[in-house]
Amino acid sequence: MSIKFKIIKKDPKSRARRGVIFTPHGKIHTPAFINVGTQAAMKALEIGDLKKLGAEAVLCNTYHLMLRPGADIIKKAGGLHKFMNWQGPIFTDSGGFQVFSLGFGMERGLRKINATLKGGLQEGKRGVPPLGGKKLAKIDDKGVTFRSHIDGSLHRLTPKSSIQIQEKLGADIIFAFDECPPPFASREYSIEAMERTHKWAKECLKTHKRRNQALFGIVQGGEYEDLRKESAKIIGAMPFDGFGIGGSFGTACSKKPIEKTLGWVIKELPTEKPRHFLGIGGVDDIFYSVKAGIDTFDCVSPTRLARQGNLYLRPESRGNIRNKFRLHISKREFKKDFGPIDKNCGCEVCKTYSRAYLNHLFASNEILAYILASKHNIYFIQQLFREIREAIKNDTLSKLEKNWLS
Amino acid sequence: MSIKFKIIKKDPKSRARRGVIFTPHGKIHTPAFINVGTQAAMKALEIGDLKKLGAEAVLCNTYHLMLRPGADIIKKAGGLHKFMNWQGPIFTDSGGFQVFSLGFGMERGLRKINATLKGGLQEGKRGVPPLGGKKLAKIDDKGVTFRSHIDGSLHRLTPKSSIQIQEKLGADIIFAFDECPPPFASREYSIEAMERTHKWAKECLKTHKRRNQALFGIVQGGEYEDLRKESAKIIGAMPFDGFGIGGSFGTACSKKPIEKTLGWVIKELPTEKPRHFLGIGGVDDIFYSVKAGIDTFDCVSPTRLARQGNLYLRPESRGNIRNKFRLHISKREFKKDFGPIDKNCGCEVCKTYSRAYLNHLFASNEILAYILASKHNIYFIQQLFREIREAIKNDTLSKLEKNWLS
Repeated sequence: MSIKFKIIKKDPKSRARRGVIFTPHGKIHTPAFINVGTQAAMKALEIGDLKKLGAEAVLCNTYHLMLRPGADIIKKAGGLHKFMNWQGPIFTDSGGFQVFSLGFGMERGLRKINATLKGGLQEGKRGVPPLGGKKLAKIDDKGVTFRSHIDGSLHRLTPKSSIQIQEKLGADIIFAFDECPPPFASREYSIEAMERTHKWAKECLKTHKRRNQALFGIVQGGEYEDLRKESAKIIGAMPFDGFGIGGSFGTACSKKPIEKTLGWVIKELPTEKPRHFLGIGGVDDIFYSVKAGIDTFDCVSPTRLARQGNLYLRPESRGNIRNKFRLHISKREFKKDFGPIDKNCGCEVCKTYSRAYLNHLFASNEILAYILASKHNIYFIQQLFREIREAIKNDTLSKLEKNWLS
Repeated sequence: MSIKFKIIKKDPKSRARRGVIFTPHGKIHTPAFINVGTQAAMKALEIGDLKKLGAEAVLCNTYHLMLRPGADIIKKAGGLHKFMNWQGPIFTDSGGFQVFSLGFGMERGLRKINATLKGGLQEGKRGVPPLGGKKLAKIDDKGVTFRSHIDGSLHRLTPKSSIQIQEKLGADIIFAFDECPPPFASREYSIEAMERTHKWAKECLKTHKRRNQALFGIVQGGEYEDLRKESAKIIGAMPFDGFGIGGSFGTACSKKPIEKTLGWVIKELPTEKPRHFLGIGGVDDIFYSVKAGIDTFDCVSPTRLARQGNLYLRPESRGNIRNKFRLHISKREFKKDFGPIDKNCGCEVCKTYSRAYLNHLFASNEILAYILASKHNIYFIQQLFREIREAIKNDTLSKLEKNWLS
């Protein structure tokens, strides 16, 4: 096995656990938040800064990298670590999520689909749901044919090619190629997608040869308890090095489904292997998921929010569930506010610059606005995870959660 | 006097000199290149990185800052140094150049005007030249009334208000409010603009009260030898702490006028005070100007070129006058080029990343592209100036020039 996972401490009151994932490129202390560097680059940040901000690993997206610059170029460059100059652990996803998102008629995230969705997806029993006719992807039992969002060129991803591409990229932890069904998919379609995911999981295991690289399976099953349990049981029994929980949560659903789904799934997965929750980044979601037994998370939200001027606030600085733990720095009230973004934050940005300066940078469209905002938000999320790990160590996780969420 | 200038060494074969400007915020070793941080921010760079790249000072633009966030906000923040977190010397220009540029129907630089110019400006004898009817500024003998390029609001700059604003901003070295006539201005108009500049220079001196701040006068006179000499004599005799050479060079004219103009002007200026050349950044221009006796330069070109993907090349790496000492990283040929931008460059970017990675970042519109490109280009220009200072010290300036320009 290419990684080792050691559980150091279990929370007595929940399924939360503190651990270490040992990878070919160093340790990841869990629970951990894996910041996303989609195109082999952190948005608005030098990769060296990521480490200084407390992050130990980064996740890149196979879909984007296979299209640009292409897996062969990255392989020739000596792999992702060398190409992007990140010597720590790297995750790559399978490309599945992005490709299926194209099928739903959207390119990034689940926001657009939520805006256009009126239950119509229930009708889409097979293949790409009938959304607007502008579908960019077509699913069959062997894989997905899709058009590049960059130049419209035709591509195909299969379980085999996804693994081969990820082997070329050379991440420490890679994911099996799965089908992520659209939010509110019908039971019938959810079964179909799940069965395809299970079949593809086997093909991924069969294809995967690279020894210094862990392969994680992905649990699907939509919003259905029996399907989720079945998927967790089947995928959990396969010889994967760890497991990802997939699906359309976050913007698509309320918090409840996350707690409920994790409750169904986690019990069926082997205790001793790490569990990754794909695409989750809200503070409340993080607490629920850590308590449910999740070890690692990835999400674009800290950096994406930063670029929109949404800067995180700690609970001591009036960050809470209602304001989503953030302020919008472009508001008029910050124009003459010479205090730091968050006086209870320990990051360099808060020690150095004022809200007035950040407000000015955003108003002036300065790239520095994105740089400083991203640094602050990444520090915030990494600091939250440091506190979570510390709390599990000290049996104070529920106290920490109360401080943050009440 | 708020600054001191000490000449350490003179070049035996030219007017070049090596010196130190002592400012309230530290030394500037000359000849020096002052990078531009227009809106109280370096483009795509944390200000702390500027120092690491070898820069000792930065220049901000009064025009932009008076409009956004406004001089009062910067004063309340504790001045520019504190607002932008730069503890070294700061220059501000007077706002004149930008305001008059608006009058010519352009917002930034001289490029647009060059494209539309067919000698028509000669006809504009008074006020704003008749260019397209979209004039945003109107000159009179007391100042300039102009519309903000941001929101169209009406503003006025006069010698007095320019100085008062610059006192609020709190730079170490500020400039007198002058009129920069358009390129190819008629002799008649050049005289008019020059005389206004001289009258305004006196008003600036009379207004300026801040003691820990040097005030530089600006020499104008267009392309006319007698006017340039007259302007240098008159401005040079006023009790300024240093002098700027203004005018429309660079993109507007060939190199010749720069050498010629500096030849006329420098002899008339006091030897013991520093001389700043406004807005010049080409490698060949820099050598000509240093030899003519210029001590400091400012220009947006290193960072602007960087953001366009134009990365500097040293002469050992085939940088030369013909290719303007640069390569365009977005070219197809660099997609699979795993060597550094410039193997003879000592910057961190060249030690760390490949041309293929930079090519990918530019293709992918990653902000990191601008960050890394800016770092490389700033290092390049600062390194050039380190070599120029060293060459003056060792009486090898003409050898260095030959290495670079032949």
